[in-house]
Amino acid sequence: MLPPSALLCDVGPRDGFQFETTPIPTPLKIATVRALADAGVPRIQATSFVHPGKVPQMADAEAVLAELDLAGPTVFSALALNRRGVERAAKAGVRVVDLSIATNPQHARDNVGMTVEQGVAEAEAMLAMCREAGMQAQLGFQTVWGYAEAEDTPLDLVVELARRFADAGIESLSLADSTGRATPVSIRRRVRAVQAAAPRVPLVLHLHDTRGAGLANVVAALDEGIARFDTSLGGLGGCPFIPGATGNIATEDTAALLDAMGVRTGIDVPAVAAATRHLVHLLGHALPGKLYTLV
Amino acid sequence: MLPPSALLCDVGPRDGFQFETTPIPTPLKIATVRALADAGVPRIQATSFVHPGKVPQMADAEAVLAELDLAGPTVFSALALNRRGVERAAKAGVRVVDLSIATNPQHARDNVGMTVEQGVAEAEAMLAMCREAGMQAQLGFQTVWGYAEAEDTPLDLVVELARRFADAGIESLSLADSTGRATPVSIRRRVRAVQAAAPRVPLVLHLHDTRGAGLANVVAALDEGIARFDTSLGGLGGCPFIPGATGNIATEDTAALLDAMGVRTGIDVPAVAAATRHLVHLLGHALPGKLYTLV
Repeated sequence: MLPPSALLCDVGPRDGFQFETTPIPTPLKIATVRALADAGVPRIQATSFVHPGKVPQMADAEAVLAELDLAGPTVFSALALNRRGVERAAKAGVRVVDLSIATNPQHARDNVGMTVEQGVAEAEAMLAMCREAGMQAQLGFQTVWGYAEAEDTPLDLVVELARRFADAGIESLSLADSTGRATPVSIRRRVRAVQAAAPRVPLVLHLHDTRGAGLANVVAALDEGIARFDTSLGGLGGCPFIPGATGNIATEDTAALLDAMGVRTGIDVPAVAAATRHLVHLLGHALPGKLYTLV
Repeated sequence: MLPPSALLCDVGPRDGFQFETTPIPTPLKIATVRALADAGVPRIQATSFVHPGKVPQMADAEAVLAELDLAGPTVFSALALNRRGVERAAKAGVRVVDLSIATNPQHARDNVGMTVEQGVAEAEAMLAMCREAGMQAQLGFQTVWGYAEAEDTPLDLVVELARRFADAGIESLSLADSTGRATPVSIRRRVRAVQAAAPRVPLVLHLHDTRGAGLANVVAALDEGIARFDTSLGGLGGCPFIPGATGNIATEDTAALLDAMGVRTGIDVPAVAAATRHLVHLLGHALPGKLYTLV
């Protein structure tokens, strides 16, 4: 039994563009976000508020958001990784902020030089700021299906963190397979454990297609009642801080598969494919998605 | 409940090489087949007996087979599409012949200029020849999940054909998603219908990853009790006679996913990935598989 509909969030303008080594002109970012919104993608992670010295590609976060209709029907979210980022998001008029914490102790040390607990404390402070500013917050757990090895992230810790944040007023909880190590079997196991710990929190899966199992994992998750997924047009993206973490599952491929299985997404697949083709042309390299060359 | 083990057949040396536009030297074909066998791939479709004028890439079928240990533990099969092909297979000492018929009336007309019934009669004659020559035969049904559109191949016809061949002494029945139009939902529906019609015949799925759903379809099929799949190293291949039909699911990606889910394949994934890398280097173009750049 699959859910009747699913909500996709295109994270390409953030998770994707961030991965590109050449600077993307701000107008192309805006055009891409708009094309996705026009194609019926209901939620788009438009940018991130990170230190411009660390991620120069995202230095134009305010400029991108200034050109979007933040009060319209499409949800434009933005990632914030520290309190300064939340401040900037509030000032930019963002309605939904995406927060993200490490759940794998080694990944926490390697990526942000913090313990998981330090990251949690920071996220709690950021959540309080979001509440105060009247912004919704999605909380993301990184590398839930493993960092250096499959499932080397302690499930007990993931469950404990889910329980801790379940009543913290988050809009949703995103579980990321940042390294593409999940399988349909481990998706079911970990999703069930988190659902049991936080039954009233909407869950979102953020899947990378590093090993080609992304859509298989979507189908297993749908069967477990998950109806929200992060995707990126053309499968754009990756994570420059996690070796081998290639792109997200492709928006158009995911939407087409869901539609073909009777799970409505409201997304105009050929329109997303056209946006991907335009981007491929301008970026000068192919993307891993399949459908953009076919439809 | 997934089966404890699965049997993969690498069809790259046939379905893959056939798709390459530049001639592959016979020694490279032999080396590829041997590398797959050495990597523990239990069954390999090594070549096809087709008219050398129609498919020049396969003109060296006898030369390839002459260099393989046809009596050893690895099964080396060969495709035959007419009686002349079966004769050549018998002469070459092949133990298992792969036969293949159209099940979609339009595809039958477009591809071989025959009706489905004419193809069936031809296959029955070929099966009789295989029996007489002491060769096992796998029968393949083409475009079971659709030709021009998803599921435009009548399921009633597929079921009737499965019933008709169920007691014809075939070694196995292969159901092909030649156009990559299957979804986990339609995989379950059509597999169940064929299982009900031919409960004692081992079923094999031949899946193309045209739309990225290949591994999702494998997982759905495993859950329906299917434990045999055709794959190709690196996702090599396609079908030059079906527009948009890109490569098979990749052997190493499939084996790695199955192993990670506890379904044994006996395949040395890094060894297959190494064979793919060697091939990519020699062919001069990338292949759609994911793992060969990672392991």
